[in-house]
Amino acid sequence: MQILRATAQNQTFYAQLDGSKIRRIDGLPYSDITFTGDTYNLADVDILTPCEPSKIVAVGRNYSAHASELGNEMPESPMLFLKPSSSALANGGSIVYPAMSERVDYEAELGVVIGSTCSNVSEANAADHIFGYTPLNDVSARDLQKKDKQWGRAKGFDTFCPFGPYIYTDFDPTGKSVQSLLNNQLRQGGNTADMHFSVFTLVAFISKVMTLLPGDIIATGTPAGIGPMSKGDTIEIRIEGMEPLINTII
Amino acid sequence: MQILRATAQNQTFYAQLDGSKIRRIDGLPYSDITFTGDTYNLADVDILTPCEPSKIVAVGRNYSAHASELGNEMPESPMLFLKPSSSALANGGSIVYPAMSERVDYEAELGVVIGSTCSNVSEANAADHIFGYTPLNDVSARDLQKKDKQWGRAKGFDTFCPFGPYIYTDFDPTGKSVQSLLNNQLRQGGNTADMHFSVFTLVAFISKVMTLLPGDIIATGTPAGIGPMSKGDTIEIRIEGMEPLINTII
Repeated sequence: MQILRATAQNQTFYAQLDGSKIRRIDGLPYSDITFTGDTYNLADVDILTPCEPSKIVAVGRNYSAHASELGNEMPESPMLFLKPSSSALANGGSIVYPAMSERVDYEAELGVVIGSTCSNVSEANAADHIFGYTPLNDVSARDLQKKDKQWGRAKGFDTFCPFGPYIYTDFDPTGKSVQSLLNNQLRQGGNTADMHFSVFTLVAFISKVMTLLPGDIIATGTPAGIGPMSKGDTIEIRIEGMEPLINTII
Repeated sequence: MQILRATAQNQTFYAQLDGSKIRRIDGLPYSDITFTGDTYNLADVDILTPCEPSKIVAVGRNYSAHASELGNEMPESPMLFLKPSSSALANGGSIVYPAMSERVDYEAELGVVIGSTCSNVSEANAADHIFGYTPLNDVSARDLQKKDKQWGRAKGFDTFCPFGPYIYTDFDPTGKSVQSLLNNQLRQGGNTADMHFSVFTLVAFISKVMTLLPGDIIATGTPAGIGPMSKGDTIEIRIEGMEPLINTII
């Protein structure tokens, strides 16, 4: 399934994509989906972020080539940081260049969406708690990231976490290309096969630290090739087998 | 006013403290409070965290004596990091010592509770967006904090953000003592007068990065005197003029 969230006729709801139509879901999509019977043309609704995370847990330096390009060693354990839920941005929305920064970078990532409340999950059982996957852009003010040491500001600005447009519930995260294209030019071309910690290792590890809730997102790290964006640019995140995530910079 | 959140007879609600009684509030307490007319004995309800933050924004190294004790320089701008909402813990609750860590520290802090949605607030207007203040313990796995560099894990474990029991809406945050007592022994004895960035500077600065929402919390940094806790210990955070925040370690 491909799950989205949308607004139509002043109502906000989750829905399942069905070709050029969407089928409205009654309530949340995380268990026992029931449909209201309402359908809409995809072209007639406003697309929102496909879920509403209570937290966005991100992983630094999970592709060795990216760690190297910033002069960093690979961590022994996943390096975790958080992006605030206020940084969420839908496909098609505008990333706002902050006045405080002089360098704002794209970071293409595979986003993992949690499906059920969990803590202390084993790697073997991690897949049971994953609802699906979505393209994500871990937008980063690179100058402030270096200056502050802690990344709460550099990665926490409003609009700095675009994800979507859809959550893919039947997606196999192994061996998939992860790309970014700046103004249609390929900039990052990685593959999830090169993750240092796999999706399942990450879910298990993070769940041993903090309770994960339905709709929470794990941003699994970015491959090599990061670089800056300018106002007016278009940035596209492509995960193999998914519709791309496209945003502009203003 | 002193605001709390409680559960009684399987219902959860906000309330105003009134001596040994509490007066139930209809809905949220952030604007135009109306009372349901129900009152309860404080002793008969279960106290929860006094608000439900969508995010907890914490500030590192905001007291110079604490920065020095860990061998750090003072930052030019507030150093921001996030604690997940899943780390929230009520007064009286147990801080769970994680198996991953061998050193878990207390950090006494003044917590600021946001009262209205805001971004790009000036320092002069910051007070208008503050609902109140509450004692907070920024519990930190010191060994993992050093090892990971980013603090998402070290400060993000479940139960690592006790705050409460009450939000004080008529509190003046200037010149107030901030203390921690471990098993009734004074360990930290600071004063908000020694903050490098004031409460109002912090609210203004953070609001220029991320939109703040009602119930969001800002943890304003800890004074010198941090140290480890052990299982079985009792840790008490005292802000001058407030009921203490007391938790045990298990």
